[in-house]
Amino acid sequence: VNGVTVDRNGLEVLEPAECFRLLSHATVGRIGLSMGALPVVLPVNFLVEDGRILIRTGAGTKLDAALHDAVVAFEVDHIDPFEHGGWSVCVTGVAREVRDERDLDRIRSLPLAHWTPNGVGHVIEISTDIMSGRRIVRP
Amino acid sequence: VNGVTVDRNGLEVLEPAECFRLLSHATVGRIGLSMGALPVVLPVNFLVEDGRILIRTGAGTKLDAALHDAVVAFEVDHIDPFEHGGWSVCVTGVAREVRDERDLDRIRSLPLAHWTPNGVGHVIEISTDIMSGRRIVRP
Repeated sequence: VNGVTVDRNGLEVLEPAECFRLLSHATVGRIGLSMGALPVVLPVNFLVEDGRILIRTGAGTKLDAALHDAVVAFEVDHIDPFEHGGWSVCVTGVAREVRDERDLDRIRSLPLAHWTPNGVGHVIEISTDIMSGRRIVRP
Repeated sequence: VNGVTVDRNGLEVLEPAECFRLLSHATVGRIGLSMGALPVVLPVNFLVEDGRILIRTGAGTKLDAALHDAVVAFEVDHIDPFEHGGWSVCVTGVAREVRDERDLDRIRSLPLAHWTPNGVGHVIEISTDIMSGRRIVRP
């Protein structure tokens, strides 16, 4: 039986490899960033490829502007309010626009959705250097 | 038929009253804040009472410290990746510890859950002054 590390709140601390696995299997995440000097959290579709988080933004939008060379938080979770269980993973990384044409061509072939009907302009990549995760431990 | 306001991304802009209604019916939200100078997003249980968001934190935790008199983002959403639909509401407000004993007594009688086994120490309130919401418009 493997040992489980528990934090001071009694939540299981997830290993980086497990965080990355959970992140890679999710399709919707929440991005935390500053827009107009105020913190906001927004849901976005994403894809993990080559160790980075990829999202699309409408070119020229406030979100697009806020994601150029900014440090952002990116969170995925699965919470079950009825079962009283769940996990969450939070990444803190640098968001940058992908500008390399070969990279963009390849990314365009990936199943990276964008739910807004208009303005699928830019592809943003977020590094996954800092990652932490927690899971609710069943008694 | 009521008119629907659509933003430049083609998403329906929700009225403040509708944002507040959606917020009031949710039980899990994600809080976006700075911890150790880095942005993070974490899931939390919450309750809306008297126009404010109430959450519990373990006393003395990093989260607890980060929620004292800080401007934070608070997000709720319902996303359906299969139906390609959903909505999200984001609040930006000031987080403060509730210290008034009468207020605390009343809050303790409310169904405000806390999932971590340890340290259910402080009650934090977040103001709901700034609120915005979006809904994916079906074609």
